[in-house]
Amino acid sequence: APLVSQGTSFISDINASFVLTSGYLVFMMQLGFALLTVGLVRTRSVKSICLKNIIDASAGGIGYWLFGWAFAYGDPFYVDDNGSTVYQSNAFIGSQQFAMSDFDQFNYYKWLFQFVFAISTATIISGAVAERMKFQAYLLYAFFLTAWVYPVLTHWVWSPTGWASPTRVTGPLLLGSGAYDTVGSGAVHMVGGLAAGAGAWVLGPRTGRFINGKPQPMPGHNSVFFMSGVLLLWFGFYGFNPGTMGQIINPDGSHFAEVVARCAISTSLGGCFGGVVALMQYFVVTKIRTGRSVWDLHQAGNGALCGMIVITSGCGTFEPWAAAVGGIVGGMVYLPSSLFFLHIVKLDDVVDATTVHGTCGCLGVLWEALLSKQGFVEQIYGTTNPDGITPRHYGWWQGDNATVLGANVIWILAMTGWTLGMMVPFFYALKLLGQLRVSPEEEMAGVDASHHGGAAYLDDMSEGSTKGGLMY
Amino acid sequence: APLVSQGTSFISDINASFVLTSGYLVFMMQLGFALLTVGLVRTRSVKSICLKNIIDASAGGIGYWLFGWAFAYGDPFYVDDNGSTVYQSNAFIGSQQFAMSDFDQFNYYKWLFQFVFAISTATIISGAVAERMKFQAYLLYAFFLTAWVYPVLTHWVWSPTGWASPTRVTGPLLLGSGAYDTVGSGAVHMVGGLAAGAGAWVLGPRTGRFINGKPQPMPGHNSVFFMSGVLLLWFGFYGFNPGTMGQIINPDGSHFAEVVARCAISTSLGGCFGGVVALMQYFVVTKIRTGRSVWDLHQAGNGALCGMIVITSGCGTFEPWAAAVGGIVGGMVYLPSSLFFLHIVKLDDVVDATTVHGTCGCLGVLWEALLSKQGFVEQIYGTTNPDGITPRHYGWWQGDNATVLGANVIWILAMTGWTLGMMVPFFYALKLLGQLRVSPEEEMAGVDASHHGGAAYLDDMSEGSTKGGLMY
Amino acid sequence: APLVSQGTSFISDINASFVLTSGYLVFMMQLGFALLTVGLVRTRSVKSICLKNIIDASAGGIGYWLFGWAFAYGDPFYVDDNGSTVYQSNAFIGSQQFAMSDFDQFNYYKWLFQFVFAISTATIISGAVAERMKFQAYLLYAFFLTAWVYPVLTHWVWSPTGWASPTRVTGPLLLGSGAYDTVGSGAVHMVGGLAAGAGAWVLGPRTGRFINGKPQPMPGHNSVFFMSGVLLLWFGFYGFNPGTMGQIINPDGSHFAEVVARCAISTSLGGCFGGVVALMQYFVVTKIRTGRSVWDLHQAGNGALCGMIVITSGCGTFEPWAAAVGGIVGGMVYLPSSLFFLHIVKLDDVVDATTVHGTCGCLGVLWEALLSKQGFVEQIYGTTNPDGITPRHYGWWQGDNATVLGANVIWILAMTGWTLGMMVPFFYALKLLGQLRVSPEEEMAGVDASHHGGAAYLDDMSEGSTKGGLMY
Repeated sequence: APLVSQGTSFISDINASFVLTSGYLVFMMQLGFALLTVGLVRTRSVKSICLKNIIDASAGGIGYWLFGWAFAYGDPFYVDDNGSTVYQSNAFIGSQQFAMSDFDQFNYYKWLFQFVFAISTATIISGAVAERMKFQAYLLYAFFLTAWVYPVLTHWVWSPTGWASPTRVTGPLLLGSGAYDTVGSGAVHMVGGLAAGAGAWVLGPRTGRFINGKPQPMPGHNSVFFMSGVLLLWFGFYGFNPGTMGQIINPDGSHFAEVVARCAISTSLGGCFGGVVALMQYFVVTKIRTGRSVWDLHQAGNGALCGMIVITSGCGTFEPWAAAVGGIVGGMVYLPSSLFFLHIVKLDDVVDATTVHGTCGCLGVLWEALLSKQGFVEQIYGTTNPDGITPRHYGWWQGDNATVLGANVIWILAMTGWTLGMMVPFFYALKLLGQLRVSPEEEMAGVDASHHGGAAYLDDMSEGSTKGGLMY
Repeated sequence: APLVSQGTSFISDINASFVLTSGYLVFMMQLGFALLTVGLVRTRSVKSICLKNIIDASAGGIGYWLFGWAFAYGDPFYVDDNGSTVYQSNAFIGSQQFAMSDFDQFNYYKWLFQFVFAISTATIISGAVAERMKFQAYLLYAFFLTAWVYPVLTHWVWSPTGWASPTRVTGPLLLGSGAYDTVGSGAVHMVGGLAAGAGAWVLGPRTGRFINGKPQPMPGHNSVFFMSGVLLLWFGFYGFNPGTMGQIINPDGSHFAEVVARCAISTSLGGCFGGVVALMQYFVVTKIRTGRSVWDLHQAGNGALCGMIVITSGCGTFEPWAAAVGGIVGGMVYLPSSLFFLHIVKLDDVVDATTVHGTCGCLGVLWEALLSKQGFVEQIYGTTNPDGITPRHYGWWQGDNATVLGANVIWILAMTGWTLGMMVPFFYALKLLGQLRVSPEEEMAGVDASHHGGAAYLDDMSEGSTKGGLMY
Repeated sequence: APLVSQGTSFISDINASFVLTSGYLVFMMQLGFALLTVGLVRTRSVKSICLKNIIDASAGGIGYWLFGWAFAYGDPFYVDDNGSTVYQSNAFIGSQQFAMSDFDQFNYYKWLFQFVFAISTATIISGAVAERMKFQAYLLYAFFLTAWVYPVLTHWVWSPTGWASPTRVTGPLLLGSGAYDTVGSGAVHMVGGLAAGAGAWVLGPRTGRFINGKPQPMPGHNSVFFMSGVLLLWFGFYGFNPGTMGQIINPDGSHFAEVVARCAISTSLGGCFGGVVALMQYFVVTKIRTGRSVWDLHQAGNGALCGMIVITSGCGTFEPWAAAVGGIVGGMVYLPSSLFFLHIVKLDDVVDATTVHGTCGCLGVLWEALLSKQGFVEQIYGTTNPDGITPRHYGWWQGDNATVLGANVIWILAMTGWTLGMMVPFFYALKLLGQLRVSPEEEMAGVDASHHGGAAYLDDMSEGSTKGGLMY
């Protein structure tokens, strides 16, 4: 008996170690997003992107520490006479552990992982609004998003008390299954993509991006940084997706690593097929439309990301072939979706976050509802709902009915309503206050020169003070 | 008894976690190779390298998923009445689990690790053939290599049924020991280097690289990317080498971590000595030949890689001093080998993959045969051959006879024959079909402009559509 | 009973795995430091920085292997009849295991972790002395530091026999507590910062950096590399700080992961607050002094590093709020300290290592003495001193007396005396021998051209041999 409990004890340490390491990989997505975005902007805005992506992590971390975790997971509870945890908080928002007060040490590792998730959501936006948003506005929304918008939403689907959560213990599950957004194609990527689209829309396009409603080329300045960003994000996905499983061993000491490994395989196949399919599709379309042969880096890179995001949410519940097909879907959707937003919506989203994270994040929530395999869902969520009786639902195209699909569609609508309902007024308020967008003169000069003290790249002939006159 | 089996159960999860994390580090070698190669090409070919290295991972992953694993490890077997695994497949090729069909979930983590190994082999080649190969040819060979050439060869030496494998259970071991290519100085690096050399040879040199048979300087364009590539590869080696051990704990719960740590130390010392020795040697040689004092980044970086590759295969079986000497050997061999291929063979290998991976990979296979220590070999392979009787052979210079050296020389010949026998006809066939090399005009304009829609680096003054006219 | 010992056995493997993975992350700090420094130098010195940071790892690794470990941890000991380890070495220096001779395999993983720490200390210096130090001098001091200065000092505080060590078993603890420099704000960062300042001081400023004693702007050339360096260092801190705990499970199988996770949280909050506070402070100061609005990347990046370094030593012993306040302190101290060294001391420290690592490292040693919480200290060091009787001391502002503060102040003085006492004469000796600084002509031409064979960045129009005439 003492040996068993000893076993249980150190197994939780092993799982914490696994989650922490995964969290560190997710942190690298900050650098990945930064470099991807740097590569896609013009030289005059490079320094602002560099700063914004350090501030994502920093201001976002402060927001998540002060408020975010509390709203997401700060559920009041007590342990009853039987040793069971009884939660008392409501289905919409948590209410304690602000600034990690009265925090259970045992959950430290979970905080780290949730923190890097929150700042990932914030950083998705920075690229879409690049080159014309005021830095103050950026600082405010990074805080607003990580302290309020994202945490509340994750409470709904990932807290054991959330109204949409499949692990809800305080009331009935949504449609009897809860929404399956296991790894966050929805809560992270789609939310980030929606907020990005909202920001880019309220801001309006960069000057010169559209002439007479027709988009003009405004290509990024550095392919190497773009490519580095893609591969660093891919690397980070190996933390993001498998790490969300939260453990490498079941608490009772039984096998779990295969679920984690399945997440890594889904990620790999999603990225591989997404990249190749997007590349091929663009080659064929361009050939037909213009007669030219173009193997396009941009397509391969963003296609790989699209593929990975489509398989993110359900990565632990897919057969490899289902992840591969998900990757193909992601790769095929990139071009039409980005053309739609550019040519029809007239949205100037510098990094196509609306498509990569928004569209593909939405598809990811659907993909989990469609292709989650019964036995695999049970490995993650158990064989029954929290009531201990109702069998777990699984994917429609895997033999179950469309229950999860229904719940996930409701979840998609809820995320859309909440995110746009929060972010559009937020950005409009900043606009009305004159705090959203730099002046046209500042934009043409470049935000680096007008707000960040000088150019990102200098050659040895550069002269004069570049950083505000105090030093350097 | 239940406790023991519980222990055995979760230990396999811990080992899976270790291997997965190692695999993620190996994935970063994709970015390492990409940046190293980007740094060594001219600006006109940068975007093609960026694309190629994303496609390595993508197309290579598809190839390995569809066919590669099956040919390498898809061995039919059954479990007999005693609970032993009985393999039925042949010594030359596996035959099932195509596209991971009927895949044992327990092996998911192994697939991930083998996948990143396969794409590492593919990416080695991209640098050698840079700046003049058609992208279509690249796509095809990445698939061909990961789906066929590399997997078959790894079946021979790493599958428990392969004819050269020291863990072979279906027949006698090669020369009584099997070939020791434990971590892949041979199967990954030498094979990659051979294929790289074959590609560069069939392609022919870049226009202007040789004038009247005399090599002309054609330096790379960015030292920072080169350096970043070297350090990222070094980082990746900490996944590649220790991760190949496949476990951090023995399945029975006894100590194993020291073997893993030994791999990390060998890697460190190999890199350290390789870098310093190559730097020093070049300084001295240049001083003597030209009178100039040059501390050369290129030498230090490639020297460190050479040192690490010499100690790769046997990293788990060397005393630290043997790894240090291996690093010195790698550092010393870089300059003469690269001069040989450039001046004598007249090979235009843009990143010296032929030397770094080919020559040093070959040396790595020999180094394991010479300096593997008895007790260390036994920690990895057991005290006896799979027959349970014959003691394991070990390194010649560690007191055993030259058995392993003999087997490893046969293995080197086999790898050379197979790789060149496959890749040379493959590249020639593409050449005959006119699908191997871009036209001289396209090459002079740069493959970025002629095949990838425009330049990798743009300043804000750039005009016009750069990516095929459809978007951006 | 056999099960218990089996448990103990594999737990040490799990801990080794944790430490090794942490060590790999620390290795990435080499790339982080390299890119940060590259970003802050002028283009003419880029290649020298790239080379120096590969050589840090290489020559530093050789120095640490040959001598460093032996001086730091090569303590003679025997195991007595009760199975206890009895150390015989003295309080000032270790004396065996040179070149890992007679090395206990079980400690292999510790060597790896100490190696990456040693090279981190060495690399801190490279930025401060950039653009004018001879490469030979760099090679020598990297070796001298990793082989002698750093190891002896770490023996004092981290070896179980060191005179300042809180784990000392061979004599009384310093002031009854020993110095608490648990993770190395002092032994790594402050020592690195002091050596950096000493080097920059003896070298003198870059030509043109001061005119009539007034500093002239000499800005770095690439913001993207700087930002990448900051985020890679942040990533590396997740290895550096948590990894130093040395385990993820207590050897008896009881919980420990929360201590490791606490380190990660301290690191995150230190970085987040440091970055935002430094950014804000500079904005306000610049606004007041010049009327301009500048959101400065440099401040945010270095501020984040300052915040992390202030909380480094005691990261495992702070409540999250104490780490947050530590981050604020780090963020606030960056600007005044760097202005002090630039304007008052007239020190040309290219990367502000003196402030970031020196000043903030010193603050980190104090911060641990002030804010270490009793229960958290006991999780790391046990409830009593090694005598088994005296309760552990903890932070002054956490309720204990100022004992640890006293010991840590002595430790700060000892580090300062030893480091400056070794490095200032060392650099002066090189200066007297004419081996420290390049000539003014070489400096103006750039060390890349004069010592490293050519420029770091080339465009396609560059001609002629760039690397010494032998090849390329």
